[in-house]
Amino acid sequence: MPRTTANLSIGNYLIQRLQDYGINDVFGIPGDYVLSFYSDLEKSPINVVGCTREDCAGFAADAYSRINGMGALCVTYCVGGLSVCNSIAGAYAEKSPVVVISGAPGVRERSSGALLHHMVRDFRTQVEVFEKFTIAGTELLDPLTAFSEIDRVLDTCDRFKRPVYIELPRDMVHVVPPVAHGYAGSTHKNDPDATSEAIRETADLLARAKKPVIIAGVEIHRFRLQDQLLQLAEAAKIPIAATVLGKSVVSERHPLYIGLYEGGVGDQAVTEFVEDSDLILLFGTFLTDINLGIYTAKLDPNRCVYATSEALRVSHHHYHNVGLQDFLNGLNAAKIHATHRTIPAELRPEASKSVSDVASDGQLRTSRMMQHIDEMIDADTIVVADVGDSLFAATELTIHERGEFLSPAYYTSMGFSVPAALGAATAKPDHRIVVIVGDGAFHMTGQEMSTLISKGHNAIVIVLDNHGYGTERYLHAGEWEYNEIHPWDYGKLLEVYRGGKSHEVSTEPEFVAALDEAWDDPSQLHLIHAKLMENDASDTLKKLAERMSAKVEPC
Amino acid sequence: MPRTTANLSIGNYLIQRLQDYGINDVFGIPGDYVLSFYSDLEKSPINVVGCTREDCAGFAADAYSRINGMGALCVTYCVGGLSVCNSIAGAYAEKSPVVVISGAPGVRERSSGALLHHMVRDFRTQVEVFEKFTIAGTELLDPLTAFSEIDRVLDTCDRFKRPVYIELPRDMVHVVPPVAHGYAGSTHKNDPDATSEAIRETADLLARAKKPVIIAGVEIHRFRLQDQLLQLAEAAKIPIAATVLGKSVVSERHPLYIGLYEGGVGDQAVTEFVEDSDLILLFGTFLTDINLGIYTAKLDPNRCVYATSEALRVSHHHYHNVGLQDFLNGLNAAKIHATHRTIPAELRPEASKSVSDVASDGQLRTSRMMQHIDEMIDADTIVVADVGDSLFAATELTIHERGEFLSPAYYTSMGFSVPAALGAATAKPDHRIVVIVGDGAFHMTGQEMSTLISKGHNAIVIVLDNHGYGTERYLHAGEWEYNEIHPWDYGKLLEVYRGGKSHEVSTEPEFVAALDEAWDDPSQLHLIHAKLMENDASDTLKKLAERMSAKVEPC
Repeated sequence: MPRTTANLSIGNYLIQRLQDYGINDVFGIPGDYVLSFYSDLEKSPINVVGCTREDCAGFAADAYSRINGMGALCVTYCVGGLSVCNSIAGAYAEKSPVVVISGAPGVRERSSGALLHHMVRDFRTQVEVFEKFTIAGTELLDPLTAFSEIDRVLDTCDRFKRPVYIELPRDMVHVVPPVAHGYAGSTHKNDPDATSEAIRETADLLARAKKPVIIAGVEIHRFRLQDQLLQLAEAAKIPIAATVLGKSVVSERHPLYIGLYEGGVGDQAVTEFVEDSDLILLFGTFLTDINLGIYTAKLDPNRCVYATSEALRVSHHHYHNVGLQDFLNGLNAAKIHATHRTIPAELRPEASKSVSDVASDGQLRTSRMMQHIDEMIDADTIVVADVGDSLFAATELTIHERGEFLSPAYYTSMGFSVPAALGAATAKPDHRIVVIVGDGAFHMTGQEMSTLISKGHNAIVIVLDNHGYGTERYLHAGEWEYNEIHPWDYGKLLEVYRGGKSHEVSTEPEFVAALDEAWDDPSQLHLIHAKLMENDASDTLKKLAERMSAKVEPC
Repeated sequence: MPRTTANLSIGNYLIQRLQDYGINDVFGIPGDYVLSFYSDLEKSPINVVGCTREDCAGFAADAYSRINGMGALCVTYCVGGLSVCNSIAGAYAEKSPVVVISGAPGVRERSSGALLHHMVRDFRTQVEVFEKFTIAGTELLDPLTAFSEIDRVLDTCDRFKRPVYIELPRDMVHVVPPVAHGYAGSTHKNDPDATSEAIRETADLLARAKKPVIIAGVEIHRFRLQDQLLQLAEAAKIPIAATVLGKSVVSERHPLYIGLYEGGVGDQAVTEFVEDSDLILLFGTFLTDINLGIYTAKLDPNRCVYATSEALRVSHHHYHNVGLQDFLNGLNAAKIHATHRTIPAELRPEASKSVSDVASDGQLRTSRMMQHIDEMIDADTIVVADVGDSLFAATELTIHERGEFLSPAYYTSMGFSVPAALGAATAKPDHRIVVIVGDGAFHMTGQEMSTLISKGHNAIVIVLDNHGYGTERYLHAGEWEYNEIHPWDYGKLLEVYRGGKSHEVSTEPEFVAALDEAWDDPSQLHLIHAKLMENDASDTLKKLAERMSAKVEPC
């Protein structure tokens, strides 16, 4: 994509290159070391979304990246940047391509010898911290290399789907480099021989398999490989399970979809079906404790093909430098005719999903709430689940479209959901965002509802209120005061933020009425404060907690 | 302090050693990798203060440390620890001795090969991050060295008054090390010959000086050297100025105190008095841009003795390994009889502090608000100022007691004040805490009022509401949308948190009435929502902004 860089400043080149990757919105908070760039952003076609806190901007940019393919965040030096460590670490862990742009002291003001405000130890402290959880980074200290550095870092973000870091000293923003520059494109090449051999071997295994299964992971979504995966599955009628982190990587209403595989803590029919397979194709899956059902998964490596963007293992041998996309394309080109493995009726997730109007005792229960939400969800819904029982309960939902379930299901950082809803709503303003969040997580970042309201987004925020850290009550035996949190009147927050409509519910009929009203009123944000009994938990959490309690306290 | 460690677990040894340093309260949020230690804490004499967010716990622990001499924070792995990077970086930058305790995956569960939830890149990611802004750290992986590692790290925290990091794998908490152990005390030694020579040289300079002055910095407070400094000043009648970060390091009503020295942006009479001195004793002062009035300070090194805990410079030569305390003690022992320098009447800060009842137009103005607050402050008041005009305005206050002004005046991280008020109130529950916070900063961490309320603290929280990032409006020319923030109805938050009394004021008489009512009612928290005109700013900010605007945009 050659373009003239004559008279183009470093700041404006960065803005153009962000747009090349489809980034139309940037999240953040201004601060004095980044004001020049903020002003350039405000003058540009890019929309600047100011957040209440930097870490919220990080979560919002993460969610935006997951949906949009790439996203960005812009903050000031140290007090801003070091406030997004946790959000960006989560994006790194779960492969979300977020571009972190930080202001910094000007190059020329660094030699004065004085300590500059916001500085921690030396000028490189923040750069060094971000090296720990970004896949590439740069300090734009030299106009001669600034354009190519921006290209290198953004290419790396796109290739690995992980966060990158760009530090822009405030006296570099308006500098016009004295160089002619055109973006040359990514130069990365995979190994064609290794790729051919891996495809041949896997195709042979597939051709011989009687009972194959695919476990689809989150990378299929991040690398936009859903079509390739479905082409393979459909051609050979291979059933597809997903991991928790990969939930909704394919539509959960697809005829080949059998549900979430979570080892011993998941649906036993799914677990038995997967573990009984003679060939297990793990595509883009992270082998995490939660994805593997807290070590209860029984996946015999002799029967596995494990393919991610970083590694490819067939049985006990490894191929290097094989691209996940090339591998899937090659398998499709091999035109495999595998056995059409029959999917038992009980494995069709919809099969079990018919909810009676209201439970007989009317009591509010998390899993019943999910069933009602499940009935409302359609192709224009994005569900954002926070950590804890919000996540466990939300796994009981059926997501209609690809990638429209967002949750930090591996890194599991509380407080993700409300700011992530802002990111999702910014990326897809025509979708309805449903947030499921516990009270503990809501205390952390619930104020981002303020930005949802000020930007006119009509999310439905459901606060599961059990007065504390409910998952911990299940994980760690004993009555501990530290699990109790101060009870809030959540609905009143909407008066603070001057917008939206609140609903307080403590029975199932009240919840159903509130949910109906919220769904039917897309004109504003709705907050549903669901007052649960303290010992309530979703069916999934109860099962998971049984398994985890044995693991959490090894001594 | 020898004690038996027979049958003492690593977790309980850590708890005992924290108490040795006077730490009676620990701030944080529990999480599954740290639940065992949390349960030990809850069973111990230490009070656990749960916060709404980890970074708030970090700010609270920082403020507690500043007041109490040392403080601690306990969080879970990565999602907790990486959320306090900014708070702890601030504590590092401003020398606050905070002990960060983080849970971690058990040593025995690390070999499974699976990715454990909360993990970012590898097991050492968090340790490596904290190396960048702590003065010492340890992973308690080995029972044989755990006790001595705890001793080493806590000693270092105490010696340097900077944060330290202790990572406690969850399967180590209850391990009883098979070693006999007694705390041996710190082994650090300074250089006695360098110390003697430095004292002799400085005493000679003082004996010859006609117009000496002391600039007292924040380290005098951190190292509890106020008595030594005052002994020296009083014996030789040396006037004392303070830096912004060191505000209240000595009582601002002390007869020798002349005000804040801020170079060209501060009170011109103070600046002229200091810069006209023939000997300037900088004790425990950081040479920062803000302390030095944005490069406007004119302190001739030939006339300076610059002594901190880390460095000692007399004119243009340096002494190494001279302790700040030894140095001050030595100067006192030298019994110097310096010239008694007269302090002009206009330099007595109280002199100018008589406020007319209400400004003639009744309009609410920040500097006038400060004058009214100034009249209320007494020896039992702690003022916590957030960043921005909250800080600049608060420098206009006269603090009665030592160290009872808290603000991140060098690192300048927004959102410090409300959680810091929790830390201050926990350290000194019998004091009245006055928080001065802008609306932008309040959006970040204002929810920590929830904890202030739930713990029964009666802080007075004054929100300076100008609908945005007011300091930036002054710093960076132009009308920028990014400086506007969504207006909240702050008072309604008290209904959310179910406690306290709110006041909304938009004129000076209303403010005076609200302040009076709040002051007279110590039974609960008060929130004063001060609705300012958008272009209002304190006199100090107006002056500072004039200077900074020239510096902020060098290009």
